Amino acid sequence: MGGQKMEKQYLTDDTICAPATTGGAITVIRISGSKAFEVIDKIFKAAYKSADFKKLESHKVVLGYIHDGKKQIDEVLATKFAGKKSYTGEDVVELSCHASPYIVQEVLRILMDNKVRMARPGEFTLRAFMNGKMDLSQAEAVADLVAANSKASHNLAFRQMRGHFSKNIQELRQQLVDFASLIELELDFSEEDVEFASRKKLYDLLKKIKAEVNRLINSFAKGNVLKHGIPVAIIGKPNVGKSTLLNAIFNEEKAIVSEIPGTTRDAIEDTIIIDNIAFRFVDTAGLRESGDEIENIGMKKTMEKVQQAAIVLYLFDASRTSMEEICDTIDDFRKNIDDKDKKLILIANKIDLLQEMPHHFKNLVELETIFVSAKRKENIQMLTDSLLKTAAAGAEEENQTIVTNSRHYEALKNTLEAVKQVKKGLDNNLSGDLLAVDLRTALYHLGSITGEVTNDEILGNIFEKFCIGK
Amino acid sequence: MGGQKMEKQYLTDDTICAPATTGGAITVIRISGSKAFEVIDKIFKAAYKSADFKKLESHKVVLGYIHDGKKQIDEVLATKFAGKKSYTGEDVVELSCHASPYIVQEVLRILMDNKVRMARPGEFTLRAFMNGKMDLSQAEAVADLVAANSKASHNLAFRQMRGHFSKNIQELRQQLVDFASLIELELDFSEEDVEFASRKKLYDLLKKIKAEVNRLINSFAKGNVLKHGIPVAIIGKPNVGKSTLLNAIFNEEKAIVSEIPGTTRDAIEDTIIIDNIAFRFVDTAGLRESGDEIENIGMKKTMEKVQQAAIVLYLFDASRTSMEEICDTIDDFRKNIDDKDKKLILIANKIDLLQEMPHHFKNLVELETIFVSAKRKENIQMLTDSLLKTAAAGAEEENQTIVTNSRHYEALKNTLEAVKQVKKGLDNNLSGDLLAVDLRTALYHLGSITGEVTNDEILGNIFEKFCIGK
Repeated sequence: MGGQKMEKQYLTDDTICAPATTGGAITVIRISGSKAFEVIDKIFKAAYKSADFKKLESHKVVLGYIHDGKKQIDEVLATKFAGKKSYTGEDVVELSCHASPYIVQEVLRILMDNKVRMARPGEFTLRAFMNGKMDLSQAEAVADLVAANSKASHNLAFRQMRGHFSKNIQELRQQLVDFASLIELELDFSEEDVEFASRKKLYDLLKKIKAEVNRLINSFAKGNVLKHGIPVAIIGKPNVGKSTLLNAIFNEEKAIVSEIPGTTRDAIEDTIIIDNIAFRFVDTAGLRESGDEIENIGMKKTMEKVQQAAIVLYLFDASRTSMEEICDTIDDFRKNIDDKDKKLILIANKIDLLQEMPHHFKNLVELETIFVSAKRKENIQMLTDSLLKTAAAGAEEENQTIVTNSRHYEALKNTLEAVKQVKKGLDNNLSGDLLAVDLRTALYHLGSITGEVTNDEILGNIFEKFCIGK
Repeated sequence: MGGQKMEKQYLTDDTICAPATTGGAITVIRISGSKAFEVIDKIFKAAYKSADFKKLESHKVVLGYIHDGKKQIDEVLATKFAGKKSYTGEDVVELSCHASPYIVQEVLRILMDNKVRMARPGEFTLRAFMNGKMDLSQAEAVADLVAANSKASHNLAFRQMRGHFSKNIQELRQQLVDFASLIELELDFSEEDVEFASRKKLYDLLKKIKAEVNRLINSFAKGNVLKHGIPVAIIGKPNVGKSTLLNAIFNEEKAIVSEIPGTTRDAIEDTIIIDNIAFRFVDTAGLRESGDEIENIGMKKTMEKVQQAAIVLYLFDASRTSMEEICDTIDDFRKNIDDKDKKLILIANKIDLLQEMPHHFKNLVELETIFVSAKRKENIQMLTDSLLKTAAAGAEEENQTIVTNSRHYEALKNTLEAVKQVKKGLDNNLSGDLLAVDLRTALYHLGSITGEVTNDEILGNIFEKFCIGK
């Protein structure tokens, strides 16, 4: 499927190896390429004569030891995957060694000595793509799957890896091809009576294609949320305890602060996983320092934060803030934010400084208000519960295809542009030949998603973000 | 072989699971126990109908996915190891999943839901021991092997895991059994003429046994060096740059500072691996802080350090120290240390402060002297080269059995004690019945090494030091 238009850089037929695991009790070392079996036959000796590696069938495991001709390095399990039935589509061996750094180093050294080369990041998956075992969007999903840290991001990556997304793109592609056939038909019959019917069909199909491409493009915003977490902004005046609150939330939940490789998110974000839901705290630069933020956050900067967020936590100092001040702030928000999907939660901080709960804060302006002491970590769980409740309200079972990858997003936008050109051409009664140019452009951009057309630069960008051994 | 005298705590026949790897591209999850196949059959579906897990033969791998009855969690490879042919001696399945924390958590959750329990540290190896797949000293070697960070420690652990050490202990045990037979013979013939000959044989055998036990006990010091690294002490007056030198050495070599689990070394040691040789810097408390050590190291404390070391680096400030002072120090050493195997290397530090190399330091007292600037990291490699040269001079191909484990060392000392009692009894013409008591004690202690006799406490101590998944 993939790889037909590949350039030389990746068209190597050497044999590669890499550890596919990094710690624990065992280390799995992967070897892939035409020489894999030959090399293993040389450096591996089965524990029992009856279990010769050379005669082993595919998908079989055998116990034995790795040696360098002089001495034994480790007792290992060797698994054989023959040719087309392997992950890469090449001959593959997986060695399961004891996870000692010395052993791993020695086994790799022996492999190098036998002209097996260290794999580049993602090179096993790249080979799987080149050998038609998966298309490019599936390969990209493998990296997403390994990085998945929440239920939502896992579901998305898993569905994409299993080919749901590719199938959708293929269907879209088929519609474009159908359209091209109709164009030809339309041209054939252009002088006859049937013209009108086929022209309507043409327009209907084009509308359908446009709608589907548009839907995919629009799903990207949601895909981003599902993949990277629900964006949350903490805002408030200086010294109300924003950084203390952030730290309290992260401590409370024994935060898994994620760093997803291969994504282009802002560096100043903190992600926390609560009950398998990812929340992404946007623009936390400065907030993660100990002590409070030394910053006079203006309305413009605040609004930028709010713009990026789906949940906004407005923090104020309950011991110093008047009811009027809060009402003014909320009015300001309501004027500036027209997005009804944004959830605003008021956080009354520093309740440890209060003698008693002031009456005027009760049932605050019909907005959800949570009273906390960030410093003493009081009621933080009420806050995280509220985040979870908000997330649950916004969640639906996603069976529609969603775009999560900015490369796909770009390709779809380019596709849409080309489709619009086709429509314009149709409106202007352009000849079939000329329409075909824009149709080809649309097909080209769609094809780049699944890798039917690609080049070294695209591949380089995709696979350099993989981890070694995948 | 093992486990006959086991108590209830470990005699469980439930099914256990744990990840055997912690990071990278894939995660291997191990499941062992009588229900392993039944559970996998329920939660795993093969990708192809022809490859049903239930019908799969042992040592075969099959592609499929893990599900919880409702949704698919991950595409995995499942490997089947049937009963006695597995690592643990029970039915074992290894699942090779994508290494996402979410996936691993979900797969473990589904296993728990099916009454598979999380394994305790080392529990797989414990079961291998209980099912007679290896003896106790081999099981201990598995942990040592995973922790091995140098060529020497790897060789020791690998030989021990492969049963070399056990074989030696078995031979020793056989000699004790032979001795017991002779005792009986001697008693049978005690009233007759043949007495003298058999008595000589008795004494010869006892001497041989004592010598062998003694040799093993004495090998422990060397075993310790091979396992944990060659002990190196850095000594010198205050402010000569000891901590700076230590840091310079560790920076230069991009130190692999090892933390070997399950060893009882002092916490204040730093290990560095240079060319696969481990060097253990003893008593570096305070030295690892930045800046120089604020301490007035007295001769007693210095001598304690020196006592523990095989290589002593005597550091002095080349810009301030007189020849006489150095000669006095060396004389002091020679008086206090009678161990010819200890290597003393003089390090003249702070050469950056010298205008030119002073003549009186050349060919310093016939001792190897290295001129360095720890601060500027000059000539540090000369020093590490010298460490390597010293190590190479002390290394021999080790084919003799060496004791590396303090538990074995204790057991051997107890064995020796019992053997000495036997000899005493023999000298005092004790009856065979009474000699047999001490013989049994000797056999008991030897048997505790390989686990022929053991108890929950010993097992607990050994396996709690393993990592999870092994």
